[in-house]
Amino acid sequence: MPDTPAERPAGRRPDFEAMWRDLAPVGRSARTGGYHRRPWDGAERELRAWFLEQCAGRGLDVRVDGLGSVVAWWRPEGASGPGVLTGSHLDSVDDGGAYDGPLGVVSALAALDRLRERGARPGRPVGVSVFAEEEGSRFGRACLGSRWATGRAAWADLRELVDPDGVRLPDALEAAGLGQGLEEGPGAGLLEGVGTFVELHVEQGRALVDLDAPVGMARGIWPHGRWRLDLEGRADHAGTTRMEDRADPVLTFAMTALAAGKQARLAGARATIGRVEVTPGSTNVVASRVSAWLDARAASEPELEALVAAITAQAAARAERDGTSLAVHPESVSGAVGFDPALVGVLDAAGRGWPVLDTQAGHDAGVLAAAGVPTAMLFVRNPTGVSHSPAEHAEVADCLAGVEALADALEVLAR
Amino acid sequence: MPDTPAERPAGRRPDFEAMWRDLAPVGRSARTGGYHRRPWDGAERELRAWFLEQCAGRGLDVRVDGLGSVVAWWRPEGASGPGVLTGSHLDSVDDGGAYDGPLGVVSALAALDRLRERGARPGRPVGVSVFAEEEGSRFGRACLGSRWATGRAAWADLRELVDPDGVRLPDALEAAGLGQGLEEGPGAGLLEGVGTFVELHVEQGRALVDLDAPVGMARGIWPHGRWRLDLEGRADHAGTTRMEDRADPVLTFAMTALAAGKQARLAGARATIGRVEVTPGSTNVVASRVSAWLDARAASEPELEALVAAITAQAAARAERDGTSLAVHPESVSGAVGFDPALVGVLDAAGRGWPVLDTQAGHDAGVLAAAGVPTAMLFVRNPTGVSHSPAEHAEVADCLAGVEALADALEVLAR
Repeated sequence: MPDTPAERPAGRRPDFEAMWRDLAPVGRSARTGGYHRRPWDGAERELRAWFLEQCAGRGLDVRVDGLGSVVAWWRPEGASGPGVLTGSHLDSVDDGGAYDGPLGVVSALAALDRLRERGARPGRPVGVSVFAEEEGSRFGRACLGSRWATGRAAWADLRELVDPDGVRLPDALEAAGLGQGLEEGPGAGLLEGVGTFVELHVEQGRALVDLDAPVGMARGIWPHGRWRLDLEGRADHAGTTRMEDRADPVLTFAMTALAAGKQARLAGARATIGRVEVTPGSTNVVASRVSAWLDARAASEPELEALVAAITAQAAARAERDGTSLAVHPESVSGAVGFDPALVGVLDAAGRGWPVLDTQAGHDAGVLAAAGVPTAMLFVRNPTGVSHSPAEHAEVADCLAGVEALADALEVLAR
Repeated sequence: MPDTPAERPAGRRPDFEAMWRDLAPVGRSARTGGYHRRPWDGAERELRAWFLEQCAGRGLDVRVDGLGSVVAWWRPEGASGPGVLTGSHLDSVDDGGAYDGPLGVVSALAALDRLRERGARPGRPVGVSVFAEEEGSRFGRACLGSRWATGRAAWADLRELVDPDGVRLPDALEAAGLGQGLEEGPGAGLLEGVGTFVELHVEQGRALVDLDAPVGMARGIWPHGRWRLDLEGRADHAGTTRMEDRADPVLTFAMTALAAGKQARLAGARATIGRVEVTPGSTNVVASRVSAWLDARAASEPELEALVAAITAQAAARAERDGTSLAVHPESVSGAVGFDPALVGVLDAAGRGWPVLDTQAGHDAGVLAAAGVPTAMLFVRNPTGVSHSPAEHAEVADCLAGVEALADALEVLAR
């Protein structure tokens, strides 16, 4: 199957598998097999360039905004009115999987190709899209690109963001050849003409495995958010300071992490601390400060509020005992998202009886739905159920079923 | 008091207070008032250059080894035999205090000046010294310079060390103009001719405050060590993975940190976790690995072993429950140090009745004592008791009392 870009006959459009092979090495760690595709940096820039090339090769009408989000339209003769958009993202968490994001982008291109192969004559424009910084792995703001495009983010706030290496967002954008027009706000109209949005995504749990279905649809997204917990204590010498004379925020943090695990388990919800910064971070120094990021999700907004309140109450009680202080800063909190029921109703266009699921993961689709765009999602089965990890996987047959499903849905929606 | 290097009359030797003012701004954070003097980098290089200049200005016979440790001898006419060495270090923990290290170096120079002012005619050489990387804040090995100089470290091991920014030790040394002759081992003989070592240091607790004494002497150093605890779990999506399906090493770490605090408190010992690395470190990813550095100290070696065993047993039990694994790697473990009783006996040369203390902090003096050099320490009162923190302090009058005490001791020892 010699179908790399170099060997491919000129003019031949790569199919799903060929596109997937093109992307497979980009940003992949040889050591772990995981992907490192931080936004606006090496691998992710390469992927965005590849996507723009794919759009150009298909004669699409491409728009890029100042953050590097892309919407590219196919406007067949006679097509008019609000368009049907599909796509996902190309960035990854650090050492993430191959599928989270890129599967939706490659499937979007492949579904567009399927429509053309079928000789479909859509009455509306059909577009493919990529939103920037979906994971928030570089600047800590999940769905940054879609929030910006829907007017949910302010430049005055974004321009102050700094990545873990100390690079400011404006400088990161400039280094990537982006950043134009951001001061004027998201008015450039990236989403102008979007009538409907469908995001295809690898499933990030095992529901489809248990239900024995290659493809599923999402009914909605759990409310979820990120809270930064700042625990302040006092730096001291790790040898000479008696245990009872310390104000050690690492102990407060430890109790907080255990409280998060326990409260989420009790509530059938999710609470995770996966990012922690200890200052000054020296072995022989009692820490002066710990910042910990709490990711919490629950089936409803009251349940989410109760969960976060229970965790922070236990943290505050322990802080009192440790002589430390606790400050809680919400960084991004997203309400419950219900996808458009009518849209979900027509997504199983071929009537294959795909299951309808809830999801606990945030997606650009959730941001667009919250902004009033009729939106829905398709999921492709993940045999491991694992995501944000090198173990994330999807079988080729299931991916191709996803492409067919997406093409079927686009054909119905763009009629 | 216009006594900065620029304003000082040529040829006039700066006294203790003038030297202290020279050092005060170097590596100081305007924000916290703490010091950032990581070995072989900006501020610490400047301090070492300053020290070499001070030695040259006093006509001392200077030796520097490949790590940048310095021994500089005053050899008065007629002096012979093993010399009396005094000194400390110039590096700091991150955001540390002004006194930990530099006080002993500046006091050593000032005490030498006092001997000359008194017209003392020592029968033995008197030397001042600085050992590199005492805190281990850059490459994680405390007392690296003195361990190397006493043959307690192997180049095959050291050359593999990497700092938190990914810089290898050999490259850090080369950038600082050092690194010569390290492949041949520490044989360059930095410590050749050393008969006795006395280190003056700011106290890192409140014993002298409670005893109302400006100066004290150390009887010995508690056994202490650093253990790296590697906790391995499995990366997962923070939203979609049910709590009961996770293997989250942050939870295992949390229980370990609480166990360390509790076991040390019960034992009247010390256990601290001040450095933690969470991988991949993303808010929306369950961690795959946590590395935590345990600093533990106790009054005797069996007590230290029991303390570490109790902590790691609790960690292992929790790992079992979390589905994670625990590996314990000792990084540097120092046995109990008893300073030379005869030497401690003559240190209070003027018979002022200074108290004799134990200390829980590691020092280069402990490494030299363990290597068989007759060694002792002087402490200067610290009114806050706080160390490794911007709050570390010593009053000028106490510092000057320390200089006099050191000069008295050197005069007796070098007779």
